[in-house]
Amino acid sequence: MKVNTQHFQSVNWDETRGGLLIIDQTLLPHRFEQRLLTSLADCCEAIISMRVRGAPLIGVVAAYGVVLAMAEDSSDAALASACEQLLATRPTAVNLRWAVHRVQNALQGAGAAERPALARQLADEIHAEDVATCNAIGEHGLDILREIYAKKLANFQTHVDTADQAPVLNILTHCNAGWLATVDWGTALAPIFKAHEAGIPVHVWVDETRPRLQGALTAWELGHHGVPHTLIADNAGGHLMQTGAVDLCLVGSDRTAANGDVCNKIGTYLKALAAADNHLPFYVALPVSTIDWQLPEGVGAVPIEERDAAELQLIRGQTANDSMAAVAVFPEHSAVANPAFDVTPARLVTALITEYGVYAANREALQALWRDIVDKPSTTKPAPTGASCE
Amino acid sequence: MKVNTQHFQSVNWDETRGGLLIIDQTLLPHRFEQRLLTSLADCCEAIISMRVRGAPLIGVVAAYGVVLAMAEDSSDAALASACEQLLATRPTAVNLRWAVHRVQNALQGAGAAERPALARQLADEIHAEDVATCNAIGEHGLDILREIYAKKLANFQTHVDTADQAPVLNILTHCNAGWLATVDWGTALAPIFKAHEAGIPVHVWVDETRPRLQGALTAWELGHHGVPHTLIADNAGGHLMQTGAVDLCLVGSDRTAANGDVCNKIGTYLKALAAADNHLPFYVALPVSTIDWQLPEGVGAVPIEERDAAELQLIRGQTANDSMAAVAVFPEHSAVANPAFDVTPARLVTALITEYGVYAANREALQALWRDIVDKPSTTKPAPTGASCE
Repeated sequence: MKVNTQHFQSVNWDETRGGLLIIDQTLLPHRFEQRLLTSLADCCEAIISMRVRGAPLIGVVAAYGVVLAMAEDSSDAALASACEQLLATRPTAVNLRWAVHRVQNALQGAGAAERPALARQLADEIHAEDVATCNAIGEHGLDILREIYAKKLANFQTHVDTADQAPVLNILTHCNAGWLATVDWGTALAPIFKAHEAGIPVHVWVDETRPRLQGALTAWELGHHGVPHTLIADNAGGHLMQTGAVDLCLVGSDRTAANGDVCNKIGTYLKALAAADNHLPFYVALPVSTIDWQLPEGVGAVPIEERDAAELQLIRGQTANDSMAAVAVFPEHSAVANPAFDVTPARLVTALITEYGVYAANREALQALWRDIVDKPSTTKPAPTGASCE
Repeated sequence: MKVNTQHFQSVNWDETRGGLLIIDQTLLPHRFEQRLLTSLADCCEAIISMRVRGAPLIGVVAAYGVVLAMAEDSSDAALASACEQLLATRPTAVNLRWAVHRVQNALQGAGAAERPALARQLADEIHAEDVATCNAIGEHGLDILREIYAKKLANFQTHVDTADQAPVLNILTHCNAGWLATVDWGTALAPIFKAHEAGIPVHVWVDETRPRLQGALTAWELGHHGVPHTLIADNAGGHLMQTGAVDLCLVGSDRTAANGDVCNKIGTYLKALAAADNHLPFYVALPVSTIDWQLPEGVGAVPIEERDAAELQLIRGQTANDSMAAVAVFPEHSAVANPAFDVTPARLVTALITEYGVYAANREALQALWRDIVDKPSTTKPAPTGASCE
């Protein structure tokens, strides 16, 4: 998507310099800087420190992590070690595991000499697939936005003085499930970018998403693409839904259980509760690679990453003289807890928007999705890993 | 309550210097500084800028604002103007209106010459009443905490290996409804302070409460009083409730409608939804002066203060070299919305803890409370303003 009118992707292999070019997301929205990762250690550090974040993107970076590891040492031991290190970077998102296992399984069947080139080919495939996947999610989601907006417009034309301005479609999102969380387009933001481009007057309520304030990334993306949006405290969404300022919620997922429970950024569950209480649709956009087919249900079962207390206590931003600084906001001796994800029960989810289409968030619909995946394998989209969808 | 082992109140009249001594809450938790307010303008500025905040406390400060105004000019015009200026400082909390009207009504019936002394007498009464009120809320709330803990302990002794440590009572609170929000004790924190002093092992989950991070004030209060607590992002409470880490929620109120709807700090509604979804009790502690007897219901009816975007965009804290600084966290051109309160429907509230006792959050129970107030007027507690409780 666009940065200062130029098209960018969040990550690209740099052929000339032999490394992975990422956007350092810890500097955004204040500075736009790219950074070259030239080793497995660089990739692990970038994932752990969240220079790259978002379930689909960390899967892609992990795949290139194997590429960089194989370029140095393509032995069985090096392959096992590289995959182990990558899997240990972040525990919740399942795409990481999916991408690493996909590359690992293919490389284990190849000789050491073939591995560097094969790893690169697989990583490039995952990279290209991610763009196609997000594009498809965007198209399926666009249909939903179009329909909700048509209803709003019809209702408006029936009930409101026509001298009033035409209504806008108000969408609330949490965290960043935009192109920065993927290679391009994003998951939850893909339908929004497409709706904006299709001329639907969208406006996005952007949860700031404490502690790491990924809402600033979402606002930065939307701003560069010209999509109207308003940042809000995470506390505000319930009030906005209660007072009619929100038409639907649309978020991403880091891991989706086989019954449709959705593990996503901490605080998602609260917004889903508010949407249900106010009879508003709550959609989750996700590539099927985030579905953990082996996980029968998500509540109480997904490992929830506990991150450093400093993420809450120290807030980083731009000072009055344009330098970056971190300020401490809490009493020094107070304990801090920082769970990074929560699980939204499937009963609160209106539907899952995937690259294969829109599916209800329940076991039966996900079994149908599984069959759709198996029935329609494409050259760029292999069936998901796992013995079955049970 | 205690600051560095010494007893403090949040506000006191300074006889020697002829002004109102407040704790400047905009500098907490980093610096503990008192500040003398010597004019009506000082009081208005302190309320608007939130050097003093919390529904009961701003009522007390407003009463002393009239005292300072009357010391300069006790004419009818000056009285009317002072009250008007104070009422305009913050629109949502009803205690402000309650305190100002109480003083105004009494002074209107007195001659200009008597007004300075009478204003002071009334402000001192409101100050003393607030301490007694919060103390009573604390005692009634303590009974509830004692009962919930007894059940938890009984359940623990029946089901758990006795070699395990005794359980603690986990209470989640939002914003600061502690002694800093009142004169002493607090509303929601009063029962917690009393439970701690009674030897019940309490632990408090403290919502940081963006945008102004009043959770830092709560943590500061609890820390100085020795109460175990953990700061969390506002996003985390739903997950903690879902995973069994919370036994009850306990919050304050800025305005309570006659049907039991509770207007409190933005985000309260989301926590009430999560408590209901997880079958946990959600209590609201409040002096009856926060009840707006003329407001039949709260949802959609309470005026919600919209505060400055800078409260979200600029986060103030302590830098590495111990100075104070503000850092900008969002993209410069993004719009920001900052509603300061939301309304929790009565159906989500387990009960209201008042100085008169514990009442269900519904119209019938509040009518009973009204009768209790009218039937048992005390010398220090006049009946609430308003023609009736309808």
